Amino acid sequence: MSTDADRLARAWLTACVEPGLPSVCSLLAKVGPREAMRAIADGRQVPGVLGSSDQTPQSTARAVLARAEAVGLRLVCPGDREWPTALDGLCHAGVLHGRGGTPYGLWVRGEHALTDLVRPAVAIVGARSSTAYGDDVAADIAAGLTDAAITVTSGAAYGIDAAAHRGALAVGGNTVAVLACGADVVYPRGHDGLLQRIAHEGLVVSEAPPGAHPTKVRFLARNRLIAALTQAVVVVEASWRSGSLNTLKWAGQLGRVGLGVPGPVTSGSSTGVHLAIREQRADLVTCAAEVREAISVIGSEPIEGSPTWGLGESRTTDALDPVCLAVLESLPASATAAVPADRLAERCGLDPTTVRQVLTRLTERGLVSCGEGGWRMRQRRAPLPAE
Amino acid sequence: MSTDADRLARAWLTACVEPGLPSVCSLLAKVGPREAMRAIADGRQVPGVLGSSDQTPQSTARAVLARAEAVGLRLVCPGDREWPTALDGLCHAGVLHGRGGTPYGLWVRGEHALTDLVRPAVAIVGARSSTAYGDDVAADIAAGLTDAAITVTSGAAYGIDAAAHRGALAVGGNTVAVLACGADVVYPRGHDGLLQRIAHEGLVVSEAPPGAHPTKVRFLARNRLIAALTQAVVVVEASWRSGSLNTLKWAGQLGRVGLGVPGPVTSGSSTGVHLAIREQRADLVTCAAEVREAISVIGSEPIEGSPTWGLGESRTTDALDPVCLAVLESLPASATAAVPADRLAERCGLDPTTVRQVLTRLTERGLVSCGEGGWRMRQRRAPLPAE
Repeated sequence: MSTDADRLARAWLTACVEPGLPSVCSLLAKVGPREAMRAIADGRQVPGVLGSSDQTPQSTARAVLARAEAVGLRLVCPGDREWPTALDGLCHAGVLHGRGGTPYGLWVRGEHALTDLVRPAVAIVGARSSTAYGDDVAADIAAGLTDAAITVTSGAAYGIDAAAHRGALAVGGNTVAVLACGADVVYPRGHDGLLQRIAHEGLVVSEAPPGAHPTKVRFLARNRLIAALTQAVVVVEASWRSGSLNTLKWAGQLGRVGLGVPGPVTSGSSTGVHLAIREQRADLVTCAAEVREAISVIGSEPIEGSPTWGLGESRTTDALDPVCLAVLESLPASATAAVPADRLAERCGLDPTTVRQVLTRLTERGLVSCGEGGWRMRQRRAPLPAE
Repeated sequence: MSTDADRLARAWLTACVEPGLPSVCSLLAKVGPREAMRAIADGRQVPGVLGSSDQTPQSTARAVLARAEAVGLRLVCPGDREWPTALDGLCHAGVLHGRGGTPYGLWVRGEHALTDLVRPAVAIVGARSSTAYGDDVAADIAAGLTDAAITVTSGAAYGIDAAAHRGALAVGGNTVAVLACGADVVYPRGHDGLLQRIAHEGLVVSEAPPGAHPTKVRFLARNRLIAALTQAVVVVEASWRSGSLNTLKWAGQLGRVGLGVPGPVTSGSSTGVHLAIREQRADLVTCAAEVREAISVIGSEPIEGSPTWGLGESRTTDALDPVCLAVLESLPASATAAVPADRLAERCGLDPTTVRQVLTRLTERGLVSCGEGGWRMRQRRAPLPAE
């Protein structure tokens, strides 16, 4: 848990410094949040830092935290239990369009622990000016991933983003929206209801402070968080210059899986996806099962350093070893289908005794349950056991 | 040129032995056509050989050749000037579904020399039950390739095949249909007019004798010829079990380029293509330019052993070295656009003197012409100079 003084400093940094400035990230890593705040506030400024206010940094930070509390936001900082360690990879993931690095802190709206919705998670992003085809496919893949207890993460924009969130919500799933504006700000305006539902069922996340407006660079900075908080980025429709290709690029920088859903070659909305597949920045996928396969370890030896390993720090799946994960993932995605332990052992290629031991551990973690017909996966949408 | 006795023997083999039998191919390669015919006709039969007639092999063969002549077919044999050496690669390309090997001979209908329509050539194949989208894309790519003086080869089936042939014919191009039945047989029945046009503008080719009906195994054997006679196989639409995926497999066996045009993931007609792309049996392409790029050497060092080198034996492009090909391919596809020699030199990265020497050689071969505005490619559809 970060100290109060550290939290204050990080709240100040998110409020007074543009997000994702590599120079600030370096300073933070070198001297820590309090000293970074002091150096920047004292005028030993780094480029790109917003003008300082008349208040002392501490009082500014307190005001920001008070405003956040009033609108239902909390600040999640490195070291907090809820901080996804997956974000720390950003400090080595380079810079795109002048933005990069670990966020100074994350503002979060919603009741779930952020770590719980990070692993497993898949981003579904794409064109704002999507087609009905793209919306349908995005919603369908989102629903399929949600059914498999995979969080769907996106940017709450019009078009594909909204379709993905709605697809997840439609089957009762959690979904995470990562915004370029404050997590309390309704942007785009038409998504008032959608953002409220996301905050209620899942989480709304941003590195921008409460009340902050979205800007072009904040969108670019935001895209790196979408990639960092997921194991794969699926682009459903994207024109040549779509921002979702920037998210795909961040997936590449971070060693995440890049995926693309093709469409008619006669559709301008799929041009960017086809190009990404041609340039091997994305693998072609056509459905949720293929997305799962792309981030799955079923049927293969666990690969150290693979994008699906060592990400995040979920309280529910934290420290699950490869054997546990293999058993977990060999359960059917649907919570209504059950499998006897012996059958499960056959599926995993493990001996029944090991599988039974693993199932006991998974039960203790609230990840599986035993009932009529055998073992089944507990869906994320079922209440998780209290910590 | 093969001897008359060899031709008679090969005519007999095409008429009395199922096409693409590896055992017969081996026998042919070992003992030659006359001895192979004798061995098979004498009853030292290899499996899969059709029942022999009451006639002597020689009289059967003469009857077949007479029938062929009557319906406007000629027999092209290994060693003939018109025989594409690209076919010889089949003897090392393995066996699929029990079929493989170099054809015993090819029955050809149409006035062009077969070698002239083999390099450069691209196969466009796909679903019989295609969608309007697939037909449009196939025709569009076929027209684009034809404009670039690339022969479009296909199987004259309903659906994508027909759309590809029609797209080529629409812009005045030659196109090659490779059939599973006799080159004089109208199959499917509805393609009477189309096959006549193809024979008139391009070529109809088959290893089955005149009058032969198509059978399942003959389609499988035919597919290897489509792949062998082209530098790339483009699959436009294909369900899971489409025969065009067999042609794609042959492309792989022969070291040809495999390409696939994606479609909506909601369309069953594109499922097979998406799978092929996912399994890296085909690269994703969206237009004729990308197909050209896939078989082109422009802007890259010539790669020895690449699928685009050393194929076929065209009388017009035969023995063109990489430098000549680079100059030829850097000319605009449209015969109406001309480029000065100096500009061409810049495009190729060659010195102007070399380029001028090359242009002289290409002019002698009837491949380019010089006029107002500079040099232009001579389209295939323009009459070729007499040999």
